[in-house]
Amino acid sequence: MNKDGATAHVLSKERADFLLRDFGRGFVKFCGFEGIAADPGRFESRVQIESRHRQQDGFIHAGVMATMADHTAGYAAFTLVSQDHRILTVEFKINFLRPASGECLICRATVIKDGSRIIIAESEVCDLHGRQESVVAKALVTLTAVPVNRIVSKD
Amino acid sequence: MNKDGATAHVLSKERADFLLRDFGRGFVKFCGFEGIAADPGRFESRVQIESRHRQQDGFIHAGVMATMADHTAGYAAFTLVSQDHRILTVEFKINFLRPASGECLICRATVIKDGSRIIIAESEVCDLHGRQESVVAKALVTLTAVPVNRIVSKD
Amino acid sequence: MNKDGATAHVLSKERADFLLRDFGRGFVKFCGFEGIAADPGRFESRVQIESRHRQQDGFIHAGVMATMADHTAGYAAFTLVSQDHRILTVEFKINFLRPASGECLICRATVIKDGSRIIIAESEVCDLHGRQESVVAKALVTLTAVPVNRIVSKD
Amino acid sequence: MNKDGATAHVLSKERADFLLRDFGRGFVKFCGFEGIAADPGRFESRVQIESRHRQQDGFIHAGVMATMADHTAGYAAFTLVSQDHRILTVEFKINFLRPASGECLICRATVIKDGSRIIIAESEVCDLHGRQESVVAKALVTLTAVPVNRIVSKD
Repeated sequence: MNKDGATAHVLSKERADFLLRDFGRGFVKFCGFEGIAADPGRFESRVQIESRHRQQDGFIHAGVMATMADHTAGYAAFTLVSQDHRILTVEFKINFLRPASGECLICRATVIKDGSRIIIAESEVCDLHGRQESVVAKALVTLTAVPVNRIVSKD
Repeated sequence: MNKDGATAHVLSKERADFLLRDFGRGFVKFCGFEGIAADPGRFESRVQIESRHRQQDGFIHAGVMATMADHTAGYAAFTLVSQDHRILTVEFKINFLRPASGECLICRATVIKDGSRIIIAESEVCDLHGRQESVVAKALVTLTAVPVNRIVSKD
Repeated sequence: MNKDGATAHVLSKERADFLLRDFGRGFVKFCGFEGIAADPGRFESRVQIESRHRQQDGFIHAGVMATMADHTAGYAAFTLVSQDHRILTVEFKINFLRPASGECLICRATVIKDGSRIIIAESEVCDLHGRQESVVAKALVTLTAVPVNRIVSKD
Repeated sequence: MNKDGATAHVLSKERADFLLRDFGRGFVKFCGFEGIAADPGRFESRVQIESRHRQQDGFIHAGVMATMADHTAGYAAFTLVSQDHRILTVEFKINFLRPASGECLICRATVIKDGSRIIIAESEVCDLHGRQESVVAKALVTLTAVPVNRIVSKD
């Protein structure tokens, strides 16, 4: 693990806008998640809940919250690396605090350890009923930054 | 945690068939996952990969594997409880061993601790390239069985 | 998972004092950990670092931090249950943010989900160099409360 | 994450003997854990249980099992790297399957993903009552190999 602590990071408006657009591709677009805020070491996303997000009992599926927690953590990490790096998830762990059934979910991810090899982030998923927000899941996510030229893209 | 070890469980053909059909509802149907085998304490699922399952670099999204690992573990737990119980995920942790890019994923979940309050399962997600199978993710999943009458369904 | 949210808990001075003393028994006494503060849903502990807490490179061993994170989370849970209940750890996950090498560790645990079956807590372990405190590990801990009469004690 | 799969590793008798001795230093020596077998990608350890390993109810403390799972996984990783590398734990997650109360614990760790940056291992902790062995805990451990010259040792 690197010993470097928090460093001052600057996130240009162009890069933030790019990440907000880039967030919603592939599986994440299919799930309907949208990036809504990008700051250095932080990212926020949102999804309007529809019937396709639910499980057999009508609650929001754990997989929806897990995907959101993972992907939002990944983009929080993207705010701290240069454009020639990709972020891959090494592992994550998520606890579901209570069944979620609101009309909307918000996810906020924060990098708690920046490093050149290993980046660690926390994600919180909140359920919205009207203006009432409650935390429904918390995740700890381990990510790694890999130079683009070491990835063989499948696009 | 209960101290009861593995007990002999019987899974009727009716119950197994019901669980295989029930597996693919809501978010899981939307994701295209299918139940393919149900045995006492074990469940197997599969998904044909399409472009909607990928992430920004063309690999299969971590959220697809996480959702599959969680949901398949849940149904492995369902094979051990009576029909008046629902299974909810308390938490899970998943490690991604290598980028997945095959045409199909298979997930196999096994209950490693059965109990009246807490059920623990392991899931393994495999990537298929032709007939070549490789493990791409492993998860440890903690579940709880709740009597149906204690759940307020959202259906 | 239970749906009950945060409830108002009262922790008597007698119960708090009992938990602070009870904290340091068996393996935890052997490790030199001490309870230093108990509030409803919160617990704080501390250990003076000696050579026996280190690993092969001279850093504080991950197992010291993990044991502290787990045990302190357990006592945070104890503040919310009646005296006829025991707390057992179902599972935990801990991320190590940076190597720890200070003269003292402080651990603060907070219950983030109270329930009659499942209790979830977060623990933060901080390294102290003089007056400088830095977070070295974060854990998410799942616990269960079991009535004493269901445990066959080994004392 | 690297894409390299399992590679053929050779572990010299000298290196294996060194790792078996090196295993039991610092906190691990203090806890009484011993290395008992080292093979490429695998490590086995053992501890004779004494009263200092127990918690408030007389069971073996979760921290004992967690430390053993972590440290044994670390030495399984050491069997795959050259002598100029150190292994640090990035994170781990451990599930406790049943209370442990035997006279001895055995831990077996296996590397499930080898890589130049990230190594992933599984550990299984077994409780021994006479000749009867039962699995009491399972862990998934993420490690990183760091060249010695990048670590500032605290010895």
